[in-house]
Amino acid sequence: MDGHRKAGFGVPDGSRSETTTRTGRFCDLIVRFVAMILTLAAAVVIGVDKQTKTVPLQLAASLPPLHVPVTARWHYLSSFVYFVVANAIACSYAAFSLVLSLLNKGKCRGFIRSAIIVMDILTVALLFSGFGAAAAVGAIGWRGNSHLNWNKMCNVFGRFCGQGAASLLLSLLGAMAFLSLSLLSAFRLQRGFK
Amino acid sequence: MDGHRKAGFGVPDGSRSETTTRTGRFCDLIVRFVAMILTLAAAVVIGVDKQTKTVPLQLAASLPPLHVPVTARWHYLSSFVYFVVANAIACSYAAFSLVLSLLNKGKCRGFIRSAIIVMDILTVALLFSGFGAAAAVGAIGWRGNSHLNWNKMCNVFGRFCGQGAASLLLSLLGAMAFLSLSLLSAFRLQRGFK
Repeated sequence: MDGHRKAGFGVPDGSRSETTTRTGRFCDLIVRFVAMILTLAAAVVIGVDKQTKTVPLQLAASLPPLHVPVTARWHYLSSFVYFVVANAIACSYAAFSLVLSLLNKGKCRGFIRSAIIVMDILTVALLFSGFGAAAAVGAIGWRGNSHLNWNKMCNVFGRFCGQGAASLLLSLLGAMAFLSLSLLSAFRLQRGFK
Repeated sequence: MDGHRKAGFGVPDGSRSETTTRTGRFCDLIVRFVAMILTLAAAVVIGVDKQTKTVPLQLAASLPPLHVPVTARWHYLSSFVYFVVANAIACSYAAFSLVLSLLNKGKCRGFIRSAIIVMDILTVALLFSGFGAAAAVGAIGWRGNSHLNWNKMCNVFGRFCGQGAASLLLSLLGAMAFLSLSLLSAFRLQRGFK
């Protein structure tokens, strides 16, 4: 690597730099594919998240409790809707950029490369905001908030919360994959590999 | 700009490229300073956010309501704590990177530049996750959630919510400033300007 640096800022030459460029591109494609799968899985896992439980409802002290079925659905919380939309956008973009990266040849190469770097960083921002929103609401659902009298729900809808947590983990890994792609691009540009 | 591109990937030369490099660095310093001020303001505005209101409390139907003082504080919600910590870290890093950028000379220049780009992208992720978390909880405080029986609080603590919204806006602008810094670095590297 020192050899490349000594050659100047921009233009590493020789077979070693060519191999490094190819390895970098291969890593980029693999991480992009993994990011696509993770964000797709995150969106699907929470998109099918639904649980129905029969809970006792006390209408009056003198009457026996009424058992009513209550259903928890992901789209009851706007943060989860935003989370699903963010992951769906990230997944679609990952698929699109994967195709673009594979076909990235000819005159427009520099422009496409720039566009992909910009979009990668924007996707990092989108996914982390979605993760923050869903995790914040998930934390309230899990522990509740006594100050605001917001009751926890995970003691009743355990499977719903477990599935939500799995989706959060998948999305976090997807967001970290996009983060790696941005850092990888920055390093490759810093060292002059396109 | 085309002239610079044609000169090669890495080493734009001549007085015009020198001027462009200086302008880029000047923009970087200005945006970094603005990001520091915005994240500092966001952390301070929500850090001093507190409101006390006297609310009627009905203990029994036969008794008159009891008026009790209730205080809303930012640290009652873990999402707001995370939001403040994220903004404080971003502000400290902005100040540190500002000094580093000003003193960025000599042999370690390339390494410092790389470290700043990596940290800028990580700060984008941190700030957007903090914004997402605080905005999600803020939205429940503002509108409530009838499905989960989480009552809204902004109808009672209007000033508290207003101040929280102002802090969210400041943090979003700060996060966008860091996003601009990351994109600016990517563009400068893409065009070969360090």
